Amino acid sequence: MEEKTWVRMVTAQTPTNIAVIKYWGKRDETLILPVNDSISVTLDPAHLCTTTTVAVSPGFDQDRMWLNGKEISLSGGRYQNCLREIRARACDVQDEEKGIKIAKKDWEKMHVHVASYNNFPTAAGLASSAAGFACLVFALAKLMNAKEDNSELSAIARQGSGSACRSLFGGFVKWNMGKAEDGSDSLAVQLVDEKHWDELVIIIAVVSSRQKETSSTTGMRDSVETSLLLEHRAKEVVPKRTKQMEEAIKNRDFGSFAQLACADSNQFHAVCLDTCPPIFYMNDTSHRQVKIISCVEKWNRSEETPQVCLTPHSRSLT
Amino acid sequence: MEEKTWVRMVTAQTPTNIAVIKYWGKRDETLILPVNDSISVTLDPAHLCTTTTVAVSPGFDQDRMWLNGKEISLSGGRYQNCLREIRARACDVQDEEKGIKIAKKDWEKMHVHVASYNNFPTAAGLASSAAGFACLVFALAKLMNAKEDNSELSAIARQGSGSACRSLFGGFVKWNMGKAEDGSDSLAVQLVDEKHWDELVIIIAVVSSRQKETSSTTGMRDSVETSLLLEHRAKEVVPKRTKQMEEAIKNRDFGSFAQLACADSNQFHAVCLDTCPPIFYMNDTSHRQVKIISCVEKWNRSEETPQVCLTPHSRSLT
Repeated sequence: MEEKTWVRMVTAQTPTNIAVIKYWGKRDETLILPVNDSISVTLDPAHLCTTTTVAVSPGFDQDRMWLNGKEISLSGGRYQNCLREIRARACDVQDEEKGIKIAKKDWEKMHVHVASYNNFPTAAGLASSAAGFACLVFALAKLMNAKEDNSELSAIARQGSGSACRSLFGGFVKWNMGKAEDGSDSLAVQLVDEKHWDELVIIIAVVSSRQKETSSTTGMRDSVETSLLLEHRAKEVVPKRTKQMEEAIKNRDFGSFAQLACADSNQFHAVCLDTCPPIFYMNDTSHRQVKIISCVEKWNRSEETPQVCLTPHSRSLT
Repeated sequence: MEEKTWVRMVTAQTPTNIAVIKYWGKRDETLILPVNDSISVTLDPAHLCTTTTVAVSPGFDQDRMWLNGKEISLSGGRYQNCLREIRARACDVQDEEKGIKIAKKDWEKMHVHVASYNNFPTAAGLASSAAGFACLVFALAKLMNAKEDNSELSAIARQGSGSACRSLFGGFVKWNMGKAEDGSDSLAVQLVDEKHWDELVIIIAVVSSRQKETSSTTGMRDSVETSLLLEHRAKEVVPKRTKQMEEAIKNRDFGSFAQLACADSNQFHAVCLDTCPPIFYMNDTSHRQVKIISCVEKWNRSEETPQVCLTPHSRSLT
C-alpha cells in the first residue's frame, strides 16, 4: 500500500515562438514533416508561455491531462505519439529521499497526469500548441529521466505540433525540414541565443482572441491539395529566403530582417488565399489589422530604414 | 466660312467586361502587353456600359474630352496613343446630305471632341476604363471611317487600357497575350457569342463605390517587380487554366467554370498580397465581401454541383 502514496512531479515552462519564415504545408501528416524550412524567434518566457506540471504515481490508473483547468482527452494521435516516444526513452529514476525507485522497464506501466496552463489566448494564432507540446515533451523527458538533448526532443515535440519543435530553444531557431522518411532529421537547431540580438523588441497585438475558423492542420492540408502556388513557394522561394534571413539575423540587419519577415508573412497569407476554399486568416479582423499594417508601412517609408516589421498570424500581429 | 459650321458625330455604346481568368501584370508598360492570356465575359450593354459621342468639326481647334460631364485632359500617353493609331487608319469620309467631305490626309489636322458617360461607378473595380477606351476607339474608328475589324481595333483599345481590348466583343472573349514585340498580336478574339450561354446570370454586388486606393497600373507594376509568385502564376498556372476555362465555356460546364473562376480570382488577390507593399484589394471591404463569399461557399457545398461562383474585383463581387 505505502508505495502507492508517492507522487513524483516535474514542472516546466516553455515560451511560444513566432515564425519569421513561415511553416505552411506538411509532406507527411502523421510524422508532421514540413514542405519547407522555417525560422522563428522565441519569446521571453516571462511573457507568453505555457506552464506544465507532469506527475507520475503508482496511484494513477490512466494517463490524464488538464488544459487551463479543464480535463481534455489524451487519446489523440499527437499526444499518444509524444507519450510513446518519450516512454521509449525513459531511464531509471531514483529519489532516495522520497523512497521513489522507477526502473526503465516500469515506465511502460506507469501512468502520468499532466496539468498545463497558457498565459495567453489558446488557438488564436499565438502558437499555443507549439509552447504546449514543447513544454509537455520537455517536462515528460525530465520526469522520465530521458537523456536526449533539446534537438532530439524537438523531433518528438514536432510530432505533437510542428512548430513546437522550435520552442525548445531561446533566441532564433531554425526548423530543418529534413530529408529522412522517418523524420529523424526534421528537427530544430538554435541559430543564435537570446542574447545575440537583445535590442530587438517584439510587440504582440491581439486583434481578436476568438479561435481561428480554420485550424492550421485543416488549412495546411487544403493548401497542399489545392494551392498552385504552395509548391513554388516551398521549393523556389523559401530556400533562398531562409538563407537571407539567417544572414540578416547573424548580422542583426533589421532592414533585411524586416523586409524578409513581412514578405514571407504576406506570402503565407497569399497561399492561404490561393487555397480552395480560400482561407481568410487576415480578412475577418482586417479592419484593425490593415490599419496597423498601413501605419507600420507609412512609418517605415517615412524613415531612412525600416523601424518595425509585421508578421501577422491568424489573429495576431507580431 | 460656311464650311466651319458643320459637325459630324458618332455615338457608340460599349459594355464593361468581367475577367474570369485575370489579367495582372504587364511585360511592356507603354504598349500594354500582358504577362498572361486572360478571358472575360462581356456584360449586357443594357446594364453596365459606357456611352461615348465623338464629334469632328472644322470649328474645333483642339482635341477635348468630357467624362461624366467633367472635362478631362487628353494629354495622357494612353489617350494620345489611341488617337494617333486611329488617325493613322482614318479614310475618306463623305456625307453629301450635310455637304461634309473629309479626305484621308485631312484627319491629321482635324480635331475631335469626346463626351463619355459611365452608367456605373468609375474606377471602383468595374472596368470603367475598359468600357471607356473600347467605346472611344470604336466610335473614333466609325467617325474616321477606319476599315479595321474589331480584333484589329482591340489592339488599339489595348493601348488605352489593357482590358479594354476585351470589350469590343460580346459573349466570352479571350485576350491573347501575343509574342510580337510591337504588340500587333496582343489582341482580343471572341470565344463564343452572347447567345451561346444565355442562361448564365451575372450578379454584380458593389460593396463600395469608392475609388481603389491602389490603381491597377501601380499595383501591377509593384507585383511584377516584387511578387515572387507572379511569374509562376503567369508561366505555369494560367496557360493550363485558360485552356480548361475555354473548354468549360464551350461545354457550358458551370461546375468547372465556377471552380476555375473562383480559383483564379483568389490567386489574383493572392499575388496582390504577395506584393511589396501588399495590395489589399479585398481586405478593406472584407467584412461585407467575406460574408458574401462565405454564403456562396455554403450554398455551393450544400448542393450537388456549384450553383454560383465569385470573381471579386477590387471593390465589387461579380
